[in-house]
Amino acid sequence: MNFTEKLLAATRQHRSLLCVGLDPEPGLLPPSLANLPLDEAITRFCCEIIEATAPFVCAFKPNLAFFEALGPKGMMALQKILKAIPAHIPTIADAKRGDIGNSARHYASAIFDIYGFDACTVNPYLGLDSVAPFLAYQEKGIIILCRTSNAGARDFQDLLVQGSDGQSYPLYEMVAQRVLAWNQFGNCGLVVGATYPQELAAIRALCPALPILIPGVGAQGGDLATAVRAGVDANGERAIISVSRAILYADSGPHFANAAEAQARHLHNQIRQALKNL
Amino acid sequence: MNFTEKLLAATRQHRSLLCVGLDPEPGLLPPSLANLPLDEAITRFCCEIIEATAPFVCAFKPNLAFFEALGPKGMMALQKILKAIPAHIPTIADAKRGDIGNSARHYASAIFDIYGFDACTVNPYLGLDSVAPFLAYQEKGIIILCRTSNAGARDFQDLLVQGSDGQSYPLYEMVAQRVLAWNQFGNCGLVVGATYPQELAAIRALCPALPILIPGVGAQGGDLATAVRAGVDANGERAIISVSRAILYADSGPHFANAAEAQARHLHNQIRQALKNL
Repeated sequence: MNFTEKLLAATRQHRSLLCVGLDPEPGLLPPSLANLPLDEAITRFCCEIIEATAPFVCAFKPNLAFFEALGPKGMMALQKILKAIPAHIPTIADAKRGDIGNSARHYASAIFDIYGFDACTVNPYLGLDSVAPFLAYQEKGIIILCRTSNAGARDFQDLLVQGSDGQSYPLYEMVAQRVLAWNQFGNCGLVVGATYPQELAAIRALCPALPILIPGVGAQGGDLATAVRAGVDANGERAIISVSRAILYADSGPHFANAAEAQARHLHNQIRQALKNL
Repeated sequence: MNFTEKLLAATRQHRSLLCVGLDPEPGLLPPSLANLPLDEAITRFCCEIIEATAPFVCAFKPNLAFFEALGPKGMMALQKILKAIPAHIPTIADAKRGDIGNSARHYASAIFDIYGFDACTVNPYLGLDSVAPFLAYQEKGIIILCRTSNAGARDFQDLLVQGSDGQSYPLYEMVAQRVLAWNQFGNCGLVVGATYPQELAAIRALCPALPILIPGVGAQGGDLATAVRAGVDANGERAIISVSRAILYADSGPHFANAAEAQARHLHNQIRQALKNL
Protein backbone atom coordinates (compact mmCIF):
# COMPACT_ATOMS: atom_id res chain seq x y z
CA MET A 1 0.00 0.00 0.00
CA ASN A 2 1.51 3.34 -1.00
CA PHE A 3 1.14 6.59 0.92
CA THR A 4 -1.93 7.86 -0.93
CA GLU A 5 -3.71 4.53 -0.49
CA LYS A 6 -2.84 4.48 3.21
CA LEU A 7 -4.02 8.08 3.55
CA LEU A 8 -7.34 7.33 1.83
CA ALA A 9 -7.85 4.21 3.95
CA ALA A 10 -7.31 6.17 7.18
CA THR A 11 -9.46 9.04 5.85
CA ARG A 12 -12.33 6.62 5.21
CA GLN A 13 -11.90 4.53 8.36
CA HIS A 14 -11.87 7.60 10.62
CA ARG A 15 -14.07 9.71 8.30
CA SER A 16 -11.44 12.40 8.80
CA LEU A 17 -9.24 14.89 6.96
CA LEU A 18 -7.64 16.03 10.22
CA CYS A 19 -3.89 15.70 10.75
CA VAL A 20 -2.40 16.39 14.17
CA GLY A 21 0.94 18.16 13.93
CA LEU A 22 3.31 17.00 16.69
CA ASP A 23 5.26 20.15 17.55
CA PRO A 24 6.26 19.65 21.20
CA GLU A 25 7.26 23.10 22.42
CA PRO A 26 9.23 22.81 25.71
CA GLY A 27 7.85 26.09 27.02
CA LEU A 28 4.26 24.98 26.49
CA LEU A 29 4.38 21.50 28.05
CA PRO A 30 1.99 20.92 30.96
CA PRO A 31 3.59 21.64 34.35
CA SER A 32 2.59 18.08 35.34
CA LEU A 33 5.47 16.84 33.10
CA ALA A 34 8.01 19.36 34.41
CA ASN A 35 9.68 16.81 36.74
CA LEU A 36 10.83 14.70 33.75
CA PRO A 37 13.94 15.23 31.62
CA LEU A 38 12.88 17.19 28.54
CA ASP A 39 13.21 14.29 26.08
CA GLU A 40 11.08 12.06 28.31
CA ALA A 41 8.56 14.86 28.84
CA ILE A 42 8.02 15.40 25.10
CA THR A 43 7.80 11.64 24.55
CA ARG A 44 5.14 11.27 27.23
CA PHE A 45 3.32 14.37 26.01
CA CYS A 46 3.23 13.27 22.35
CA CYS A 47 2.28 9.67 23.19
CA GLU A 48 -0.68 10.85 25.27
CA ILE A 49 -1.75 13.24 22.50
CA ILE A 50 -1.50 10.43 19.93
CA GLU A 51 -3.58 8.03 22.01
CA ALA A 52 -6.23 10.65 22.68
CA THR A 53 -6.57 11.98 19.14
CA ALA A 54 -5.89 8.93 16.94
CA PRO A 55 -9.60 8.07 16.38
CA PHE A 56 -10.17 11.50 14.82
CA VAL A 57 -7.22 11.81 12.41
CA CYS A 58 -6.14 10.71 8.94
CA ALA A 59 -2.43 11.33 9.68
CA PHE A 60 0.12 12.46 12.27
CA LYS A 61 2.81 14.97 11.32
CA PRO A 62 5.84 15.25 13.64
CA ASN A 63 7.84 18.40 12.90
CA LEU A 64 11.52 17.46 13.03
CA ALA A 65 12.66 20.91 14.17
CA PHE A 66 11.20 20.34 17.64
CA PHE A 67 13.03 17.03 18.05
CA GLU A 68 16.34 18.18 16.57
CA ALA A 69 16.38 21.07 19.03
CA LEU A 70 16.91 18.51 21.85
CA GLY A 71 19.98 17.02 20.16
CA PRO A 72 20.47 13.24 19.72
CA LYS A 73 18.10 12.54 22.64
CA GLY A 74 15.36 14.37 20.78
CA MET A 75 15.81 12.02 17.82
CA MET A 76 15.53 9.02 20.15
CA ALA A 77 12.31 10.54 21.53
CA LEU A 78 11.05 10.84 17.94
CA GLN A 79 11.67 7.12 17.41
CA LYS A 80 9.65 6.26 20.51
CA ILE A 81 6.82 8.57 19.49
CA LEU A 82 6.64 7.06 16.01
CA LYS A 83 6.26 3.61 17.56
CA ALA A 84 3.22 4.87 19.48
CA ILE A 85 1.36 5.84 16.31
CA PRO A 86 -1.12 3.10 15.27
CA ALA A 87 0.20 1.26 12.20
CA HIS A 88 -2.77 2.10 9.99
CA ILE A 89 -2.34 5.87 10.42
CA PRO A 90 0.15 7.46 8.00
CA THR A 91 3.04 9.50 9.40
CA ILE A 92 4.35 12.62 7.67
CA ALA A 93 7.83 13.92 8.49
CA ASP A 94 7.56 17.69 8.40
CA ALA A 95 11.23 18.09 7.55
CA LYS A 96 11.20 20.44 4.53
CA ARG A 97 14.45 18.98 3.27
CA GLY A 98 16.14 20.10 0.07
CA ASP A 99 19.64 19.16 -1.08
CA ILE A 100 21.37 17.60 -4.05
CA GLY A 101 22.79 14.24 -5.10
CA ASN A 102 24.20 12.12 -2.32
CA SER A 103 23.00 14.54 0.35
CA ALA A 104 19.39 14.24 -0.79
CA ARG A 105 19.74 10.46 -0.87
CA HIS A 106 20.94 10.46 2.74
CA TYR A 107 18.15 12.79 3.88
CA ALA A 108 15.59 10.53 2.21
CA SER A 109 17.19 7.46 3.78
CA ALA A 110 17.11 9.07 7.24
CA ILE A 111 13.42 9.90 6.95
CA PHE A 112 12.19 6.71 5.29
CA ASP A 113 14.69 3.95 6.19
CA ILE A 114 15.86 5.02 9.66
CA TYR A 115 12.77 6.71 11.10
CA GLY A 116 10.26 4.83 8.90
CA PHE A 117 7.96 7.73 7.99
CA ASP A 118 5.29 7.24 5.31
CA ALA A 119 5.79 10.69 3.79
CA CYS A 120 8.06 13.73 3.95
CA THR A 121 7.77 17.43 3.12
CA VAL A 122 10.42 18.60 0.63
CA ASN A 123 11.54 22.06 -0.55
CA PRO A 124 11.55 22.54 -4.36
CA TYR A 125 14.08 25.41 -4.66
CA LEU A 126 16.94 23.12 -5.82
CA GLY A 127 14.89 21.54 -8.60
CA LEU A 128 14.13 18.05 -9.82
CA ASP A 129 17.46 16.40 -9.06
CA SER A 130 17.07 17.40 -5.40
CA VAL A 131 13.62 15.80 -5.21
CA ALA A 132 14.42 12.71 -7.31
CA PRO A 133 16.09 10.70 -4.49
CA PHE A 134 12.86 11.12 -2.49
CA LEU A 135 10.67 10.28 -5.51
CA ALA A 136 12.64 7.04 -5.89
CA TYR A 137 10.81 5.80 -2.77
CA GLN A 138 7.73 4.95 -4.81
CA GLU A 139 5.62 3.78 -1.84
CA LYS A 140 6.28 6.95 0.16
CA GLY A 141 4.57 10.33 -0.12
CA ILE A 142 6.74 13.23 -1.32
CA ILE A 143 4.91 16.39 -0.31
CA ILE A 144 6.48 19.41 -1.97
CA LEU A 145 6.24 22.97 -0.62
CA CYS A 146 4.13 25.01 -3.02
CA ARG A 147 2.37 27.95 -1.31
CA THR A 148 3.26 28.06 2.36
CA SER A 149 1.02 29.50 5.09
CA ASN A 150 3.33 32.28 6.32
CA ALA A 151 3.44 35.97 5.42
CA GLY A 152 6.94 35.57 3.92
CA ALA A 153 5.51 33.18 1.35
CA ARG A 154 4.93 36.34 -0.69
CA ASP A 155 8.66 37.17 -0.90
CA PHE A 156 9.40 34.64 -3.63
CA GLN A 157 6.46 32.24 -4.10
CA ASP A 158 4.17 34.98 -5.45
CA LEU A 159 6.67 36.48 -7.89
CA LEU A 160 5.45 36.28 -11.48
CA VAL A 161 7.66 34.08 -13.62
CA GLN A 162 7.67 33.48 -17.35
CA GLY A 163 6.58 29.99 -18.35
CA SER A 164 7.86 28.19 -21.46
CA ASP A 165 4.56 29.19 -23.14
CA GLY A 166 5.42 32.88 -22.74
CA GLN A 167 2.67 33.34 -20.14
CA SER A 168 3.29 34.64 -16.62
CA TYR A 169 2.52 32.52 -13.55
CA PRO A 170 3.21 32.98 -9.85
CA LEU A 171 6.23 30.88 -8.89
CA TYR A 172 4.13 28.63 -6.62
CA GLU A 173 1.91 27.73 -9.57
CA MET A 174 4.99 26.94 -11.66
CA VAL A 175 6.08 24.62 -8.81
CA ALA A 176 2.68 22.87 -8.92
CA GLN A 177 2.97 22.46 -12.70
CA ARG A 178 6.41 20.91 -12.37
CA VAL A 179 5.28 18.59 -9.59
CA LEU A 180 2.57 17.23 -11.89
CA ALA A 181 5.36 16.32 -14.33
CA TRP A 182 7.46 14.80 -11.51
CA ASN A 183 4.56 12.59 -10.39
CA GLN A 184 5.27 9.60 -12.63
CA PHE A 185 5.12 7.18 -9.67
CA GLY A 186 1.95 8.81 -8.32
CA ASN A 187 3.70 9.61 -5.03
CA CYS A 188 3.73 13.42 -5.06
CA GLY A 189 1.70 15.82 -2.94
CA LEU A 190 1.80 19.57 -2.27
CA VAL A 191 1.84 21.88 0.75
CA VAL A 192 -0.57 24.80 0.37
CA GLY A 193 -1.42 26.99 3.36
CA ALA A 194 -5.00 27.43 4.57
CA THR A 195 -4.24 31.13 4.96
CA TYR A 196 -4.46 31.58 1.18
CA PRO A 197 -7.78 29.89 0.22
CA GLN A 198 -7.96 31.36 -3.30
CA GLU A 199 -4.51 30.02 -4.14
CA LEU A 200 -5.50 26.71 -2.54
CA ALA A 201 -8.58 26.44 -4.78
CA ALA A 202 -6.51 27.30 -7.87
CA ILE A 203 -3.93 24.65 -7.02
CA ARG A 204 -6.63 22.04 -6.37
CA ALA A 205 -8.13 22.84 -9.80
CA LEU A 206 -4.71 22.43 -11.42
CA CYS A 207 -3.90 19.21 -9.53
CA PRO A 208 -7.17 17.31 -9.06
CA ALA A 209 -5.56 14.07 -7.81
CA LEU A 210 -2.66 15.19 -5.61
CA PRO A 211 -2.89 14.95 -1.82
CA ILE A 212 -2.60 18.49 -0.45
CA LEU A 213 -1.22 19.09 3.04
CA ILE A 214 -2.91 22.21 4.39
CA PRO A 215 -1.36 23.85 7.46
CA GLY A 216 -2.36 27.25 8.78
CA VAL A 217 -5.80 26.58 10.27
CA GLY A 218 -6.22 27.84 13.82
CA ALA A 219 -3.27 29.65 15.38
CA GLN A 220 -2.14 30.94 11.97
CA GLY A 221 -5.58 32.30 11.14
CA GLY A 222 -6.85 30.13 8.27
CA ASP A 223 -10.60 29.40 8.29
CA LEU A 224 -11.28 25.67 8.62
CA ALA A 225 -14.45 25.34 6.52
CA THR A 226 -13.05 27.52 3.74
CA ALA A 227 -9.85 25.48 3.65
CA VAL A 228 -11.75 22.19 3.53
CA ARG A 229 -13.95 23.31 0.65
CA ALA A 230 -11.03 24.78 -1.31
CA GLY A 231 -8.70 21.86 -0.64
CA VAL A 232 -10.62 18.60 -1.17
CA ASP A 233 -10.73 16.65 -4.41
CA ALA A 234 -13.97 15.81 -6.25
CA ASN A 235 -14.69 13.06 -3.71
CA GLY A 236 -14.15 15.28 -0.68
CA GLU A 237 -10.79 13.62 0.04
CA ARG A 238 -7.00 14.06 -0.44
CA ALA A 239 -6.93 17.19 1.73
CA ILE A 240 -4.85 16.86 4.90
CA ILE A 241 -5.91 19.59 7.30
CA SER A 242 -3.01 19.97 9.71
CA VAL A 243 -3.57 21.47 13.15
CA SER A 244 -0.92 21.60 15.87
CA ARG A 245 -1.12 24.19 18.60
CA ALA A 246 -4.93 24.39 18.86
CA ILE A 247 -4.97 20.67 19.74
CA LEU A 248 -1.65 20.17 21.57
CA TYR A 249 -2.11 23.09 23.91
CA ALA A 250 -5.91 23.10 24.25
CA ASP A 251 -5.33 22.87 28.00
CA SER A 252 -2.10 23.25 29.96
CA GLY A 253 -3.26 21.28 33.00
CA PRO A 254 -2.75 17.60 33.81
CA HIS A 255 -5.83 16.72 31.69
CA PHE A 256 -4.24 18.11 28.52
CA ALA A 257 -4.92 14.86 26.64
CA ASN A 258 -8.66 15.03 27.38
CA ALA A 259 -8.71 18.62 26.15
CA ALA A 260 -6.78 17.61 23.02
CA GLU A 261 -9.26 14.81 22.39
CA ALA A 262 -12.20 17.19 22.75
CA GLN A 263 -10.58 19.68 20.41
CA ALA A 264 -9.75 17.00 17.81
CA ARG A 265 -13.33 15.68 18.02
CA HIS A 266 -14.63 19.22 17.56
CA LEU A 267 -12.42 19.87 14.50
CA HIS A 268 -13.32 16.44 13.09
CA ASN A 269 -17.00 17.40 13.33
CA GLN A 270 -16.41 20.83 11.85
CA ILE A 271 -14.64 19.26 8.86
CA ARG A 272 -17.52 16.82 8.33
CA GLN A 273 -19.95 19.73 8.53
CA ALA A 274 -17.97 21.66 5.92
CA LEU A 275 -17.99 18.61 3.64
CA LYS A 276 -21.78 18.27 3.93
CA ASN A 277 -22.17 21.84 2.71
CA LEU A 278 -19.91 21.33 -0.31
CA MET B 1 34.00 37.79 17.02
CA ASN B 2 31.20 37.17 14.51
CA PHE B 3 31.27 34.58 11.75
CA THR B 4 32.68 36.83 9.04
CA GLU B 5 35.47 38.04 11.35
CA LYS B 6 36.28 34.46 12.33
CA LEU B 7 36.27 33.43 8.67
CA LEU B 8 38.60 36.28 7.69
CA ALA B 9 40.94 35.50 10.60
CA ALA B 10 41.20 31.84 9.56
CA THR B 11 41.53 32.83 5.89
CA ARG B 12 44.49 35.07 6.76
CA GLN B 13 46.14 32.77 9.30
CA HIS B 14 46.04 29.79 6.92
CA ARG B 15 46.24 31.94 3.76
CA SER B 16 43.36 29.82 2.52
CA LEU B 17 39.92 29.98 0.91
CA LEU B 18 39.55 26.20 1.07
CA CYS B 19 36.70 24.63 3.02
CA VAL B 20 36.64 20.86 3.55
CA GLY B 21 33.14 19.45 3.32
CA LEU B 22 32.65 16.59 5.77
CA ASP B 23 30.32 14.20 3.89
CA PRO B 24 31.16 10.76 5.33
CA GLU B 25 29.70 8.30 2.84
CA PRO B 26 29.48 4.81 4.44
CA GLY B 27 30.14 3.08 1.11
CA LEU B 28 33.35 5.05 0.54
CA LEU B 29 35.02 4.67 3.95
CA PRO B 30 38.45 3.02 3.93
CA PRO B 31 38.27 -0.76 4.48
CA SER B 32 40.66 -0.22 7.40
CA LEU B 33 37.70 1.23 9.35
CA ALA B 34 35.29 -1.54 8.38
CA ASN B 35 35.65 -3.38 11.70
CA LEU B 36 34.11 -0.44 13.61
CA PRO B 37 30.40 0.29 14.10
CA LEU B 38 29.39 2.80 11.43
CA ASP B 39 29.02 5.78 13.78
CA GLU B 40 32.48 5.15 15.23
CA ALA B 41 33.93 4.65 11.76
CA ILE B 42 32.67 8.00 10.47
CA THR B 43 33.84 9.71 13.67
CA ARG B 44 37.34 8.28 13.31
CA PHE B 45 37.36 9.03 9.57
CA CYS B 46 36.27 12.67 9.96
CA CYS B 47 38.59 13.31 12.92
CA GLU B 48 41.60 12.06 10.96
CA ILE B 49 40.57 14.15 7.93
CA ILE B 50 40.20 17.22 10.16
CA GLU B 51 43.61 16.78 11.78
CA ALA B 52 45.30 16.23 8.40
CA THR B 53 43.67 19.11 6.52
CA ALA B 54 43.18 21.80 9.21
CA PRO B 55 46.35 23.75 8.34
CA PHE B 56 45.08 24.30 4.80
CA VAL B 57 41.49 25.40 5.37
CA CYS B 58 39.47 28.49 6.27
CA ALA B 59 36.43 26.43 7.37
CA PHE B 60 34.97 22.95 7.82
CA LYS B 61 31.48 22.17 6.55
CA PRO B 62 29.79 19.02 7.92
CA ASN B 63 26.75 18.06 5.82
CA LEU B 64 23.99 17.06 8.21
CA ALA B 65 22.38 14.61 5.77
CA PHE B 66 25.25 12.16 6.21
CA PHE B 67 24.93 12.21 9.99
CA GLU B 68 21.14 12.10 10.12
CA ALA B 69 21.19 9.00 7.94
CA LEU B 70 22.74 7.11 10.88
CA GLY B 71 19.93 8.07 13.24
CA PRO B 72 20.53 9.46 16.77
CA LYS B 73 23.99 7.83 16.87
CA GLY B 74 24.96 9.83 13.79
CA MET B 75 24.10 13.03 15.63
CA MET B 76 26.29 11.96 18.55
CA ALA B 77 29.09 11.31 16.06
CA LEU B 78 28.57 14.83 14.71
CA GLN B 79 29.02 16.23 18.21
CA LYS B 80 32.32 14.37 18.63
CA ILE B 81 33.54 15.50 15.22
CA LEU B 82 32.73 19.14 15.95
CA LYS B 83 34.83 18.92 19.13
CA ALA B 84 37.79 17.81 17.02
CA ILE B 85 37.74 20.96 14.89
CA PRO B 86 40.29 23.52 16.16
CA ALA B 87 38.49 26.41 17.88
CA HIS B 88 39.84 29.10 15.55
CA ILE B 89 38.43 27.42 12.41
CA PRO B 90 34.78 28.28 11.65
CA THR B 91 32.26 25.49 11.25
CA ILE B 92 29.42 25.65 8.73
CA ALA B 93 26.37 23.39 9.15
CA ASP B 94 25.35 22.42 5.64
CA ALA B 95 21.75 21.87 6.68
CA LYS B 96 19.75 23.86 4.09
CA ARG B 97 16.93 24.38 6.57
CA GLY B 98 13.81 26.36 5.76
CA ASP B 99 10.67 26.53 7.88
CA ILE B 100 8.47 29.12 9.54
CA GLY B 101 7.92 30.64 12.98
CA ASN B 102 8.55 28.33 15.90
CA SER B 103 9.91 25.58 13.65
CA ALA B 104 12.58 27.86 12.24
CA ARG B 105 13.48 28.98 15.76
CA HIS B 106 13.97 25.37 16.82
CA TYR B 107 16.05 24.52 13.75
CA ALA B 108 18.26 27.55 14.45
CA SER B 109 18.55 26.55 18.10
CA ALA B 110 19.54 23.00 17.17
CA ILE B 111 22.29 24.20 14.83
CA PHE B 112 23.66 27.05 16.92
CA ASP B 113 22.82 26.26 20.57
CA ILE B 114 22.91 22.46 20.64
CA TYR B 115 25.60 21.66 18.06
CA GLY B 116 27.42 25.01 18.36
CA PHE B 117 28.05 25.69 14.66
CA ASP B 118 29.37 29.11 13.59
CA ALA B 119 27.19 29.25 10.45
CA CYS B 120 24.35 27.44 8.71
CA THR B 121 23.05 27.15 5.16
CA VAL B 122 19.39 28.16 4.81
CA ASN B 123 16.82 27.81 2.00
CA PRO B 124 15.07 31.07 0.99
CA TYR B 125 11.85 29.64 -0.58
CA LEU B 126 9.70 30.46 2.49
CA GLY B 127 10.79 34.10 2.62
CA LEU B 128 12.05 36.49 5.24
CA ASP B 129 10.06 35.23 8.23
CA SER B 130 11.61 31.78 7.72
CA VAL B 131 15.13 33.22 7.76
CA ALA B 132 14.58 35.78 10.53
CA PRO B 133 14.98 33.32 13.46
CA PHE B 134 18.43 32.46 12.05
CA LEU B 135 19.30 36.13 11.43
CA ALA B 136 18.53 36.81 15.10
CA TYR B 137 21.79 35.00 15.92
CA GLN B 138 23.82 38.07 15.08
CA GLU B 139 27.21 36.46 15.71
CA LYS B 140 26.47 33.48 13.45
CA GLY B 141 26.72 33.25 9.67
CA ILE B 142 23.44 32.75 7.78
CA ILE B 143 24.38 31.47 4.34
CA ILE B 144 21.38 31.52 2.04
CA LEU B 145 21.00 29.30 -1.03
CA CYS B 146 21.14 31.52 -4.10
CA ARG B 147 22.38 29.66 -7.21
CA THR B 148 23.14 26.03 -6.37
CA SER B 149 25.70 23.88 -8.18
CA ASN B 150 23.36 21.17 -9.52
CA ALA B 151 21.69 20.82 -12.92
CA GLY B 152 18.22 21.14 -11.34
CA ALA B 153 19.14 24.66 -10.18
CA ARG B 154 17.76 25.71 -13.57
CA ASP B 155 14.24 24.43 -12.79
CA PHE B 156 13.28 27.41 -10.64
CA GLN B 157 16.37 29.51 -9.79
CA ASP B 158 16.86 30.63 -13.42
CA LEU B 159 13.24 31.55 -14.07
CA LEU B 160 12.85 35.22 -14.97
CA VAL B 161 10.80 37.11 -12.42
CA GLN B 162 9.43 40.63 -12.47
CA GLY B 163 11.05 42.93 -9.94
CA SER B 164 9.24 45.85 -8.29
CA ASP B 165 11.04 48.12 -10.81
CA GLY B 166 9.28 46.34 -13.70
CA GLN B 167 12.56 44.78 -14.86
CA SER B 168 13.09 41.01 -15.19
CA TYR B 169 15.68 39.16 -13.14
CA PRO B 170 16.49 35.49 -12.69
CA LEU B 171 15.00 34.29 -9.41
CA TYR B 172 18.47 33.63 -7.91
CA GLU B 173 19.41 37.27 -8.48
CA MET B 174 16.17 38.37 -6.81
CA VAL B 175 17.18 36.19 -3.85
CA ALA B 176 20.58 37.92 -3.71
CA GLN B 177 18.90 41.34 -3.81
CA ARG B 178 16.62 40.41 -0.94
CA VAL B 179 19.48 38.98 1.10
CA LEU B 180 21.27 42.34 0.83
CA ALA B 181 18.19 43.89 2.43
CA TRP B 182 18.06 41.16 5.11
CA ASN B 183 21.71 41.76 6.05
CA GLN B 184 21.14 44.44 8.69
CA PHE B 185 23.29 42.60 11.24
CA GLY B 186 26.02 41.91 8.67
CA ASN B 187 25.64 38.16 9.20
CA CYS B 188 24.38 37.00 5.79
CA GLY B 189 26.19 35.04 3.12
CA LEU B 190 25.19 33.26 -0.09
CA VAL B 191 25.66 29.84 -1.68
CA VAL B 192 26.60 30.06 -5.36
CA GLY B 193 27.88 26.99 -7.22
CA ALA B 194 31.28 26.94 -8.93
CA THR B 195 29.59 25.20 -11.85
CA TYR B 196 28.05 28.52 -12.92
CA PRO B 197 31.01 30.97 -12.94
CA GLN B 198 29.23 33.73 -14.87
CA GLU B 199 26.38 33.77 -12.38
CA LEU B 200 28.94 33.68 -9.57
CA ALA B 201 30.73 36.76 -10.97
CA ALA B 202 27.41 38.59 -11.35
CA ILE B 203 26.41 37.80 -7.76
CA ARG B 204 29.81 38.90 -6.45
CA ALA B 205 29.42 42.21 -8.33
CA LEU B 206 25.97 42.68 -6.80
CA CYS B 207 27.11 41.71 -3.27
CA PRO B 208 30.70 42.94 -2.86
CA ALA B 209 30.91 42.29 0.90
CA LEU B 210 28.99 39.03 1.45
CA PRO B 211 30.84 35.79 2.16
CA ILE B 212 30.02 33.38 -0.69
CA LEU B 213 30.11 29.63 -0.10
CA ILE B 214 31.11 28.01 -3.38
CA PRO B 215 30.54 24.26 -3.74
CA GLY B 216 30.84 22.36 -6.99
CA VAL B 217 34.61 22.34 -7.59
CA GLY B 218 36.03 18.92 -8.36
CA ALA B 219 33.60 15.99 -8.52
CA GLN B 220 30.80 18.28 -9.72
CA GLY B 221 32.94 19.74 -12.50
CA GLY B 222 33.50 23.39 -11.53
CA ASP B 223 36.94 24.81 -12.44
CA LEU B 224 38.86 25.87 -9.34
CA ALA B 225 40.79 28.87 -10.68
CA THR B 226 37.73 30.24 -12.48
CA ALA B 227 35.63 29.91 -9.34
CA VAL B 228 38.26 31.63 -7.19
CA ARG B 229 38.56 34.58 -9.57
CA ALA B 230 34.79 34.94 -9.96
CA GLY B 231 34.03 34.49 -6.27
CA VAL B 232 36.50 36.57 -4.24
CA ASP B 233 35.88 40.12 -3.04
CA ALA B 234 38.13 43.07 -3.93
CA ASN B 235 40.70 41.86 -1.37
CA GLY B 236 40.78 38.29 -2.66
CA GLU B 237 38.75 37.08 0.34
CA ARG B 238 35.20 36.14 1.46
CA ALA B 239 35.04 33.22 -0.98
CA ILE B 240 34.69 29.81 0.66
CA ILE B 241 35.71 27.16 -1.85
CA SER B 242 34.13 23.96 -0.61
CA VAL B 243 35.57 20.59 -1.64
CA SER B 244 34.40 17.27 -0.24
CA ARG B 245 34.87 14.07 -2.21
CA ALA B 246 38.15 15.02 -3.94
CA ILE B 247 39.76 15.39 -0.49
CA LEU B 248 37.87 12.84 1.63
CA TYR B 249 38.27 9.99 -0.84
CA ALA B 250 41.65 10.92 -2.37
CA ASP B 251 42.79 7.43 -1.33
CA SER B 252 40.77 4.53 -0.01
CA GLY B 253 43.67 2.79 1.72
CA PRO B 254 44.73 3.03 5.37
CA HIS B 255 46.76 6.19 4.56
CA PHE B 256 43.64 8.09 3.47
CA ALA B 257 44.49 10.97 5.80
CA ASN B 258 47.90 11.48 4.20
CA ALA B 259 46.29 11.50 0.78
CA ALA B 260 43.66 13.98 1.99
CA GLU B 261 46.41 16.20 3.38
CA ALA B 262 48.29 16.12 0.08
CA GLN B 263 45.13 16.92 -1.85
CA ALA B 264 44.21 19.79 0.51
CA ARG B 265 47.76 21.17 0.22
CA HIS B 266 47.52 20.93 -3.57
CA LEU B 267 44.15 22.74 -3.70
CA HIS B 268 45.46 25.35 -1.23
CA ASN B 269 48.36 26.04 -3.58
CA GLN B 270 46.14 26.12 -6.63
CA ILE B 271 43.89 28.69 -4.95
CA ARG B 272 46.90 30.86 -4.06
CA GLN B 273 48.11 30.58 -7.65
CA ALA B 274 44.71 31.67 -8.95
CA LEU B 275 44.76 34.65 -6.58
CA LYS B 276 48.21 35.73 -7.82
CA ASN B 277 46.87 35.85 -11.36
CA LEU B 278 43.86 37.99 -10.45
